[in-house]
Amino acid sequence: MGPHPAVAAIRLAVRHVLHDILNGHRATSEAPGPSAQAPHERPSSPLVLVACSGGADSMALASALAFEAPKLGIRAGGVTVDHGLQPGSDLRADEVALRLRELGLDPVDCVAVTVGREGGPEAAARDARYAALDAAAVRHGATAILLGHTRDDQAETVLLGLARGSGIRSLSGMAAVSGAGGRYRRPFLQLDRQTARKACMVQSLPVWDDPHNADPAYTRSRLRHEGLPALEKALGKGVVEALARTAQLSRDDADALDAWAGQAEASVRDAAGLLECAKLYALPPAVRRRVLRRAAIEAGAPAGSLFARHIEEVDRLITGWRGQGAINLPGKVVAQRQGGRLVIRQG
Amino acid sequence: MGPHPAVAAIRLAVRHVLHDILNGHRATSEAPGPSAQAPHERPSSPLVLVACSGGADSMALASALAFEAPKLGIRAGGVTVDHGLQPGSDLRADEVALRLRELGLDPVDCVAVTVGREGGPEAAARDARYAALDAAAVRHGATAILLGHTRDDQAETVLLGLARGSGIRSLSGMAAVSGAGGRYRRPFLQLDRQTARKACMVQSLPVWDDPHNADPAYTRSRLRHEGLPALEKALGKGVVEALARTAQLSRDDADALDAWAGQAEASVRDAAGLLECAKLYALPPAVRRRVLRRAAIEAGAPAGSLFARHIEEVDRLITGWRGQGAINLPGKVVAQRQGGRLVIRQG
Repeated sequence: MGPHPAVAAIRLAVRHVLHDILNGHRATSEAPGPSAQAPHERPSSPLVLVACSGGADSMALASALAFEAPKLGIRAGGVTVDHGLQPGSDLRADEVALRLRELGLDPVDCVAVTVGREGGPEAAARDARYAALDAAAVRHGATAILLGHTRDDQAETVLLGLARGSGIRSLSGMAAVSGAGGRYRRPFLQLDRQTARKACMVQSLPVWDDPHNADPAYTRSRLRHEGLPALEKALGKGVVEALARTAQLSRDDADALDAWAGQAEASVRDAAGLLECAKLYALPPAVRRRVLRRAAIEAGAPAGSLFARHIEEVDRLITGWRGQGAINLPGKVVAQRQGGRLVIRQG
Repeated sequence: MGPHPAVAAIRLAVRHVLHDILNGHRATSEAPGPSAQAPHERPSSPLVLVACSGGADSMALASALAFEAPKLGIRAGGVTVDHGLQPGSDLRADEVALRLRELGLDPVDCVAVTVGREGGPEAAARDARYAALDAAAVRHGATAILLGHTRDDQAETVLLGLARGSGIRSLSGMAAVSGAGGRYRRPFLQLDRQTARKACMVQSLPVWDDPHNADPAYTRSRLRHEGLPALEKALGKGVVEALARTAQLSRDDADALDAWAGQAEASVRDAAGLLECAKLYALPPAVRRRVLRRAAIEAGAPAGSLFARHIEEVDRLITGWRGQGAINLPGKVVAQRQGGRLVIRQG
C-alpha cells in the first residue's frame, strides 16, 4: 500500500524540486573553469536545508525532504529561527530542532535573531529571518534552502500586493525560485495548506501553530481568517487557485515588460545619454513608465519609496507637457523637462 | 456660494469628458474627405446621451450632463432600458424617463428589451442593455453615451476578473472609453459611489435602488456587500482605490504585451506561414503565450472559451516537448507539433 495521498503529494512536490536542484548542481560542478574539479572526481553530494518554523507547512516539508533526499544522494539538513518575539521562543526553537533531528536531518541549526523595527513588525521579522537563513546556507555550504510557502500563502501575498495598487509586479507573489543564485526554493507553491496539514496528521508529526498567524493585529492574519474566506464566499471556492495563477501570469508579464523597458531605455537616450522626450512619448505607456522608473532608481531614488503616483507625475512631463516645474522624487531625486530632454538626477 | 463639493466633483468629471468628446467631434467634423462639410458650414452640435437606470450613479451623471452640456454647445439626451425582469419594470422605466426630461434632457428614450439566458443572468442582461444602447445611439445620431460606473464598480470588476485567474487582461476592468468608435464613456471611473449618492441627495434627486444590487444570488452583489467590505477590513480603506489603479496599470500592460505579441507573431512564422517551434521557444513566456492564444483564435477557437490552462497545455508542446499527441482546444481546434512546426487548425 502506498502512502496517504497527502503524503504522496508533498513528496512528489519535493522530489520535483530536488531533481531540479540536482541538475543545477551537476551543471555547476561539471562546468569547466578555474574552479572545476578534476575529471576523475565525482561532484560532491549537495546539501539541501529546510527552513522550519515547526508549523504544519514547514514540518510537512521537512518530512518530505528527509524521505526524498537520501534516495537522490542529497544530504538534508534543517534550520529553525528563534525570532525572540515571545517568552519561551528559545525553548520552542530547540524543540523544533529536536524534531528535525528525529526526522533524520543533519545538520540542524537553531539560530537566534534580533528583530528590528524597520518596515513594521512583519517585514522586520522577515528580514531578520532571511538574513539568518542566508548565513546558515553559507556556513554549511548548502546548495538550496526549501521554504514551506503554500498556494494559500501565495494567494494572500497576491492580495497584499493588490492592496498596494502598484501594478502587476506586486501581484506576482512569491517566486518558486528566488534569492542569491536561486538559493530559495518553494516546492509547495502549488499545494494547498490543507494538504500539508493532513500530511503532518497522518504521519503523526506534532505541529506548532504560531499565535501570530491568528493575531488580528497582523494584516496577513486578518486576510487569512476574514478577508479571503469572505472573498471565497462571494466568488466561489476557486479564488485561491485563481490568485495563485494570477501570480504566475503576472510574474511572466512583468518580466517581459521589464526586459522590453531595459532595451527601450538605451534607444531613447541621445548621444549625451539624456532621455529624449519625443522618443519616450512614442513608447507604449506601460513601457515608458518602466523606463522612467528605471531612470529614477538609477539616479538614486530608493525603489521601495517610489510609488506609481510619482512615476505618473513624471510621465505627465512627457504626455501632458504644459511647462510644469521640477518634480521632487524620493531620495532627493529631481525630474525636469529641459529643451526636449527629460533630466532625472540628484537635486 | 459654489455648489456642494459632491456636485462640483460630478460636474468636473463630466466636463472633462465632454471636452474630450468635443475635441474628437471637431476633429472628425473638420477632417477633409468625402463626408467633410463645406468650409463655411459650422460643425453640427453633437448629441451626448446618458444611460440611466434611475440609480444614484446614473442619476448623478444625468444631472451633471444636463448642467454641463449646454455650456459647451452640446445637446444632452438620455436612454433608460426596461429589462422586463421585474413586475412593474415598465412603469419604473417610464418614471426614470420622466425624471430625465425634468432635468432638461432631450431626446429621452425608454427602451424595452428581452433578456436572454446566454452566459448567465448578469451577462444576458448586460448584452441586451448594450445592444439597446447601441441602437439608440445610431437612431439619434449620438456622438457618445455616458455610463455611470464608479470607482467602486471598477474595484468589483477587478475582483471578478481576479477570480477568473486568467491574467492581467481580466484585471484591467472597464475602460474609460470603449465600444465602437469609442462611443461609451465612463466619466465616474475615478469617483466613488458615495460622492454620486451625495450629489443626488443635495440636489434632491430621487433615486431608485435596483433590488438586484442587494440580491445575494448575484456574484457582484455578494462582492459588494460582503467580499469587498471584508477585504477593506483586512487590508485597509485604500483597497478600492488600489484596485482601480491596478485596473489602469494592468490595462496598459496588457495593451503593450498584446502589441508585442502582434509583432512577434509575424516573426515566428516560416515562409509557409507555420509557427516555428524554435523561434517560439526563444520568446519570453508572456509573449509566447499571447502568440499561441492569437493563433488559436485565428484558427477558430472562441476567445471566451479559451482559458489559461488550454494555452499552458499548448505551450508545453514548445517548452516541455516529449512527443505529446494533438491537443484539443475549444471550437474543434487542434494544436499539434509536427517536425519543428506548431500546427493549430480546425480538426
